[in-house]
Amino acid sequence: MNFTLKILGTASALPISDRYPSAQVLDVRGRLFLIDCGEGVQVRMRQTSTSYLGVEAIFISHLHGDHLFGIFGLLSTMALMGRTGKLDIFAPRAFRPVLEFFLSRFGEGFNYEIVHHPLSMTAPETVLELRNVTASAFPLNHKIDCFGFLFREKEPELNVRKSKIEEFGLGIAEIASAKRGEDIVRGDMTIPNGELTYVPYEPRSYAYCSDTAPFPELAQWVRGVDLLYHEATYPDEMASKAAARFHSTARDAARCAQEAGVGRLLIGHYSSKYPDLSVFLSQAREVFPDTDLAQDRAVIEIPLQRHTKL
Amino acid sequence: MNFTLKILGTASALPISDRYPSAQVLDVRGRLFLIDCGEGVQVRMRQTSTSYLGVEAIFISHLHGDHLFGIFGLLSTMALMGRTGKLDIFAPRAFRPVLEFFLSRFGEGFNYEIVHHPLSMTAPETVLELRNVTASAFPLNHKIDCFGFLFREKEPELNVRKSKIEEFGLGIAEIASAKRGEDIVRGDMTIPNGELTYVPYEPRSYAYCSDTAPFPELAQWVRGVDLLYHEATYPDEMASKAAARFHSTARDAARCAQEAGVGRLLIGHYSSKYPDLSVFLSQAREVFPDTDLAQDRAVIEIPLQRHTKL
Repeated sequence: MNFTLKILGTASALPISDRYPSAQVLDVRGRLFLIDCGEGVQVRMRQTSTSYLGVEAIFISHLHGDHLFGIFGLLSTMALMGRTGKLDIFAPRAFRPVLEFFLSRFGEGFNYEIVHHPLSMTAPETVLELRNVTASAFPLNHKIDCFGFLFREKEPELNVRKSKIEEFGLGIAEIASAKRGEDIVRGDMTIPNGELTYVPYEPRSYAYCSDTAPFPELAQWVRGVDLLYHEATYPDEMASKAAARFHSTARDAARCAQEAGVGRLLIGHYSSKYPDLSVFLSQAREVFPDTDLAQDRAVIEIPLQRHTKL
Repeated sequence: MNFTLKILGTASALPISDRYPSAQVLDVRGRLFLIDCGEGVQVRMRQTSTSYLGVEAIFISHLHGDHLFGIFGLLSTMALMGRTGKLDIFAPRAFRPVLEFFLSRFGEGFNYEIVHHPLSMTAPETVLELRNVTASAFPLNHKIDCFGFLFREKEPELNVRKSKIEEFGLGIAEIASAKRGEDIVRGDMTIPNGELTYVPYEPRSYAYCSDTAPFPELAQWVRGVDLLYHEATYPDEMASKAAARFHSTARDAARCAQEAGVGRLLIGHYSSKYPDLSVFLSQAREVFPDTDLAQDRAVIEIPLQRHTKL
């Protein structure tokens, strides 16, 4: 029942020797979602033993090259490896002609369907719904159309407390009814559902926000997620440059995390001028102590928080 | 007066953890020529301290993704780093629409001129002539249009032997004449040029042949080069697959080197199914002992062979 994030690239526009451009893989109970496709993503996937054919869907935040240029090699490699399963790509509208051009020139021998789902929302919308997880997208504040993504486990089925089954002598039909969230009515007695059931675990959630300048709605849209990844291209002293380029500082990222009451913050998308990232970390932690630096090849697990009620 | 080859990538279609797709940089007396642009080339350039802005020209053998997909990130990075110097790209004709599409979508803010020189020759032709070096291109035998490249230092000026200057009491005009390759005529006495002059060093040469199946003319076209890089995608046991895919085995590469009488052979473009390359090396060395494996990040110098004649 894993919910695991693998960081493949944390560089911003210019990669450096050990930082690739933006890419991540989120594994939700074995379903792999690739988020952004910076150049070299397929090599990083090899290096981190990430299955090419296991990728179910790709989410592209925006069409700057450092989030995109790895997709051509990756799609080709999937074809060379004989992929047949459909691949969904959630990306801004402007991706459509890029994909079409790519397939027209380099798409020979592709035996799998690629479906582009254009993103153009102005507020959060669900874009993918699977048995255990949903993905939604929302606009960010960048120079060009850019979208953030939120992945959330679905609410689990309610569990009925064993002790209450015994206490009330609940029958099978009543147990099923309680699992559906209903009160149990016996004649003129009503047993409230809340007394009978509990949520076996809290659904986990992860939000990815890159690239973006700060804006008021964002904290609301990522409220309460277990893990937030927020770009932090610059430290404080470059705040005016960040604003001019529609990026964020580490402090901006931390403010968003604090306002949204997230569980934990990961910052990344570092400017190549900063091989030493300690200033990013310290500035973010002043505002939001539960901040960590995203590092290439790091693996972050969000453990399941089980509730057990007898 | 260096003539140095830096190997950036030796993988064929599918990169593996420590092998990037094809790319090399040839440094001829400080002029940098990039040969093929597999994905990740800009990262490899960082890792090997290769100057982005120092690249004078790019040579693309063919438009398979593993030789090309790194060019988009590289051109973008050159722009971000403020390149103003013209960049020449020698590539098959079919590169033109790819370049135009790329610039139309991702070329904002490019302040340098990119000139595409389309390749379509059916026999060796000089494509670039600089003060100290020429580059020529010739067709290879692959599934799609594909070209090999030969880089050759120019013939140096003749030197006049000091001893002969003394012996014949050569004047300044006569020395100049001898340097031009002329005989010295004094009345009815002729001093042959060959007695007076010598070539101070042998011009060095490097040929790059990937991707290709064997064909008769190739050995003639790369005859006598100091260093030959020849693809060796497969070992012997995969010879029929090599033929079907218009690739070469290690033994094919070695036969070409032997027939061409090259100084040294480097093989590369290895299939990802072979993490252990020893079989490639042993099979090639049976035919051409002066074979080495190209390895990612290796640097190969071709030293200057000076002639000193008093």
